[in-house]
Amino acid sequence: MDLRIPRIEIRRTSSDTQLDKVQGIKGASVYNIHGLAGSQGSLSIPPIHRDVPGYRGSNEFILSDDKKTTMDQLREIGPWCRRKYKSIFRKKILYKRVPVLSWLPKYNGEDAIGDLVAGFTVGLTVIPQALAYSSIAGLPAAYGLYGSFLGCFIYILLGSCKDVPMGPTAIASLLTFQVTNGIWQRAVLLCFLTGLVELLMGLFALGFLIDFVSGPVSSGFTSAAALIILSSQVKDLLGITAKGNTFVEQWQAILVDIHNTRLGDAVMGFTCIVVLLLMRLLPRVKFGPPEVEDQSLLQKIMNKTMWLVGTARNAIIVVVCGSIGAAFYNNGQMPFKMIGDVPKGLPSVQPPPFYVPEVKDANGTITQEYESFGDMLGSFGSMLIVIPLIALLEDVAICKAFANGKPVDATQELIAIGVSNIANSFVQGYPGTGALSRGAVNNASGVRTPFGGLYTGIIVILALLFFTPYFFYIPKAALAAIIIAAVIFMVEVRVVKPMWRSKKTDLIPGIAAFIACLALPIEYGILVGIGLNVVFILYHAARPKLHLDQLITPCGIKYLMLTPDRSLIFPSSDFVRNLINKHGLKNQTPVVIDCTHIYGADFTAAQVIDTLIKDFKMRNQMLLFLNLKPSVCNVFEGAELEYRVFYDIEQLEKAIQEIRRKSFQA
Amino acid sequence: MDLRIPRIEIRRTSSDTQLDKVQGIKGASVYNIHGLAGSQGSLSIPPIHRDVPGYRGSNEFILSDDKKTTMDQLREIGPWCRRKYKSIFRKKILYKRVPVLSWLPKYNGEDAIGDLVAGFTVGLTVIPQALAYSSIAGLPAAYGLYGSFLGCFIYILLGSCKDVPMGPTAIASLLTFQVTNGIWQRAVLLCFLTGLVELLMGLFALGFLIDFVSGPVSSGFTSAAALIILSSQVKDLLGITAKGNTFVEQWQAILVDIHNTRLGDAVMGFTCIVVLLLMRLLPRVKFGPPEVEDQSLLQKIMNKTMWLVGTARNAIIVVVCGSIGAAFYNNGQMPFKMIGDVPKGLPSVQPPPFYVPEVKDANGTITQEYESFGDMLGSFGSMLIVIPLIALLEDVAICKAFANGKPVDATQELIAIGVSNIANSFVQGYPGTGALSRGAVNNASGVRTPFGGLYTGIIVILALLFFTPYFFYIPKAALAAIIIAAVIFMVEVRVVKPMWRSKKTDLIPGIAAFIACLALPIEYGILVGIGLNVVFILYHAARPKLHLDQLITPCGIKYLMLTPDRSLIFPSSDFVRNLINKHGLKNQTPVVIDCTHIYGADFTAAQVIDTLIKDFKMRNQMLLFLNLKPSVCNVFEGAELEYRVFYDIEQLEKAIQEIRRKSFQA
Repeated sequence: MDLRIPRIEIRRTSSDTQLDKVQGIKGASVYNIHGLAGSQGSLSIPPIHRDVPGYRGSNEFILSDDKKTTMDQLREIGPWCRRKYKSIFRKKILYKRVPVLSWLPKYNGEDAIGDLVAGFTVGLTVIPQALAYSSIAGLPAAYGLYGSFLGCFIYILLGSCKDVPMGPTAIASLLTFQVTNGIWQRAVLLCFLTGLVELLMGLFALGFLIDFVSGPVSSGFTSAAALIILSSQVKDLLGITAKGNTFVEQWQAILVDIHNTRLGDAVMGFTCIVVLLLMRLLPRVKFGPPEVEDQSLLQKIMNKTMWLVGTARNAIIVVVCGSIGAAFYNNGQMPFKMIGDVPKGLPSVQPPPFYVPEVKDANGTITQEYESFGDMLGSFGSMLIVIPLIALLEDVAICKAFANGKPVDATQELIAIGVSNIANSFVQGYPGTGALSRGAVNNASGVRTPFGGLYTGIIVILALLFFTPYFFYIPKAALAAIIIAAVIFMVEVRVVKPMWRSKKTDLIPGIAAFIACLALPIEYGILVGIGLNVVFILYHAARPKLHLDQLITPCGIKYLMLTPDRSLIFPSSDFVRNLINKHGLKNQTPVVIDCTHIYGADFTAAQVIDTLIKDFKMRNQMLLFLNLKPSVCNVFEGAELEYRVFYDIEQLEKAIQEIRRKSFQA
Repeated sequence: MDLRIPRIEIRRTSSDTQLDKVQGIKGASVYNIHGLAGSQGSLSIPPIHRDVPGYRGSNEFILSDDKKTTMDQLREIGPWCRRKYKSIFRKKILYKRVPVLSWLPKYNGEDAIGDLVAGFTVGLTVIPQALAYSSIAGLPAAYGLYGSFLGCFIYILLGSCKDVPMGPTAIASLLTFQVTNGIWQRAVLLCFLTGLVELLMGLFALGFLIDFVSGPVSSGFTSAAALIILSSQVKDLLGITAKGNTFVEQWQAILVDIHNTRLGDAVMGFTCIVVLLLMRLLPRVKFGPPEVEDQSLLQKIMNKTMWLVGTARNAIIVVVCGSIGAAFYNNGQMPFKMIGDVPKGLPSVQPPPFYVPEVKDANGTITQEYESFGDMLGSFGSMLIVIPLIALLEDVAICKAFANGKPVDATQELIAIGVSNIANSFVQGYPGTGALSRGAVNNASGVRTPFGGLYTGIIVILALLFFTPYFFYIPKAALAAIIIAAVIFMVEVRVVKPMWRSKKTDLIPGIAAFIACLALPIEYGILVGIGLNVVFILYHAARPKLHLDQLITPCGIKYLMLTPDRSLIFPSSDFVRNLINKHGLKNQTPVVIDCTHIYGADFTAAQVIDTLIKDFKMRNQMLLFLNLKPSVCNVFEGAELEYRVFYDIEQLEKAIQEIRRKSFQA
């Protein structure tokens, strides 16, 4: 078996602009799956070829035969537009954009049971959460419930992920509070506008934007948000009054009023936190053997009960504490603050309010000033981008967690939560998204399609119709305890250690985002983190690594092999030129640039390589290229560079010896 | 000779965190020249090894033995700081920061003659240019001269590039006009502040920032600036009055007043343009044989005269037109506008003005309102960053053009032009930098060290002391003609064609910068171009290419080889995971990820690879890694990933067959 590799030398000069057509010996099937289509050309090189064992890299490559002229390309624009236009209305796209069409026809009994159980369980979770989250958003308790049913129904039609329970979340409530300051008209308008932004982002396929929120920044943001939410609940936990937007303001306000702590609230609150944390452990308690098949019926029932009690712990706490509250109240005592009247019945269906009316109290002093649509829009500002971004992040986190490797369609999720939020704004809901905590409950309860949302929505409607009188007695401290017992697990201290071990520099944007979110208004905090990350990417693009090898040809001629580790684009090209020149000047030997890792180049890089070639020419020093990809060759040839490229190291060394001999003879 | 490659298989699990120490068979000498030192680790892999012909890639790599613990690293901070502190005061740094120390001791007679000739020639060029550029900046003619001598002297001490003539330039004058609107106090303060910013940028080594201005954006900006400068001179060429900041405003104003065109100015202006363009061709006229040695003395003198006349064409035009003007004026005629009185003598040495005083005309109406330092600072805004950036761009362009491949020290240039500008602001100069046109004259006149600047500065001083009375007669139209005949060559139409052939997408930021600079205030224009380029880099980082190969082991087991073409960082990692999962799901064969081109990874990428590994585990599908660099292994291990990596394809295929056999047996 001949292991020798065929040698191909292509000499390129400015006159030789047509690419030689070279076919790899045994061309492996190569596809360009995706990439900067227009900018990188359609040529590709198989990075490995198994028929030649022990051989890696490329002196073989496939060039596409259809080198099109510019006019050909221009002529193709018309048909391309027509194809695009048609494809938008194709059946496949319809199924993709209205996912219910694909799963509903296959819906079966097993699905129905799974969805019913999961929907009911989530319903038990969402009611206490909705009541509690309203207080994070600074709104009356009913608004959380108003935003918890219509969105669920819409999501059944448009949602692409079975585990997402659309509705209010802790972080979305916090962000809502930061801009609305407890004025419900603002919150409902914000719901409408963020829904609109989400829908537009979906239609323009801008879901990729969350790719630019790195793991560390996301952790830093979530941890800071958890701390701010926790701080916002301390006042209810202690029964004091304290107001503040940022973390620092909140604690300042708490410290001012802490001497007014009410015993009843504090006892109720801290007891609830301890009980909740203990109940959270219940599902881990297992009776009998570890495998379900080996368990007796009693053991199975016990295990299932433990799981149910653990999962429905929030609902249980609310019912128990509400009963205690009612008992005290009926005895004429009020040892703790209660959430008070929750209006009975469904919210009225009406367009979102586009202004805030002036409100006067009994004395005629204005308690709430008039605000126009423009005023509100101005106060929302960058939040109209930040809230949809965070909402998508939270939603996609659920999808990814339970997708089992199936790709997540961020565009479709944006459309789904966008339309849901727009709908919610017509029933006085405030901005919501897929809630991570309820998503986990949903998945653990065995949900099989988004249809489970129907039952969740129905339970919320029933609660609004029949149970609101009983909500009166729920102690605020119990709701604060529910929130605190949930958000302390959102402070992601545990990622710091692996991050430190894995890549220490990643801690910088993470910690910066964390501190900035605590110190500044939260939307600026996350922007600081994203900005820092972008600087890292730019630095990465601007300062490639160069590997340096001092090699010797079989005839004993020393030469220098320089290998840049990534593509040549404008911020790095001058840096690379300087490095190559520096080492070229130092060694005065022939220099070979190994372009194996250079997958792309731009015009600036071509210009810089041009001056590099001229620098070497002026010094009468040899400069050769190895393994230059055809797409990069195209860029170089367009810029009329004169260069010599080789695709085989033996051939290259022969050429070095040849040139050296000639120069000695001359 | 044994061509077989030794096989190394490293099985990595979360418990196996200590890196196995593997030494390459015949380790080529490998240096990490530069890079993200902290973030990429100190391990490196020789990309090619010539002792194994036909072999490329890496199953051999060198691991550094000195794996330091965190405490060791912390302990090293102290000594590191001390070393850094000492190195600042080392002799080498002193020589680098005061370049005159290195070249002055070696200064000889030949250098002196070269510098004298070049300095004198540049002096002849700078006087007409300084007078003309003042009108671009909207200032009286003397201010251009004020900024043309002290900076030259300072640059001798601090400048690192022999060809740079420090002083006013067309583009710097335009930028000055855009913010100062012809108020000299503002211009001089701007000179001081931009000098300060340049100095600070130099001290903090921020010279790399110009790397982010790509070739296309720079071309677009220069072309637009040239058109704006040209438009600003049309009014003087025609003898009309027209004011405007942007390109559109200027032409609107010109069209309004064009019916007042003065015949004398127009004839003078257009004649000068034609004559200047013809004189520009003179240096190309060669008498006698092409080689200098073969020419007779007469031919040599003729050629040298042609060159001198062509190079000093601006000075000649000014002298001739000034004489014509003087002749007419002394006959009591004024067929064209003249620049008028230029104050005699050197400017007074005084600190830059930190406020603009109120000015009233004879009637007591305010013609110039009071402006505080704060007012001026506010009106400068982003120009305080843009002007230094553009100044450095222009300066470095000269250095690069004549550096013969020697690296350009952007930091030192920033310090040099910064201190020069600060000094100029004390003699009422306005912002300047190295002027490309005079740099070319300087180089062509045979300058050998920055010392040539001394003679240029002396000539300017002599002009201020003795020639100012004669400047009175210079027609404005002649100066306008000098500017127009120079800037039309700055419109870089010629780069469009190679850019189109080389990389079409590069036209987008270029054309965007060009249009934005014409339509918006020019500083926003260049920021638009830079912003677009940054978006391109981010997209490039977010969407890598993946190569797909369907391969078969010798025993006939199909498997999929996926090769990402660049590093895994957070914006791309989810995209790559989705692609790998998609193809893994479609094929259901074992999947191998070839990491040859992955030179770095961050924590987000490690987390995503972690879920990818779990996805495959859940599907019972095989996922193996090939050629994972040790630095990336470190990142993965820090994140506690369980993965199997191979450094040899045969071993990999054996492992696939082994695992497949076991799973069949089970």
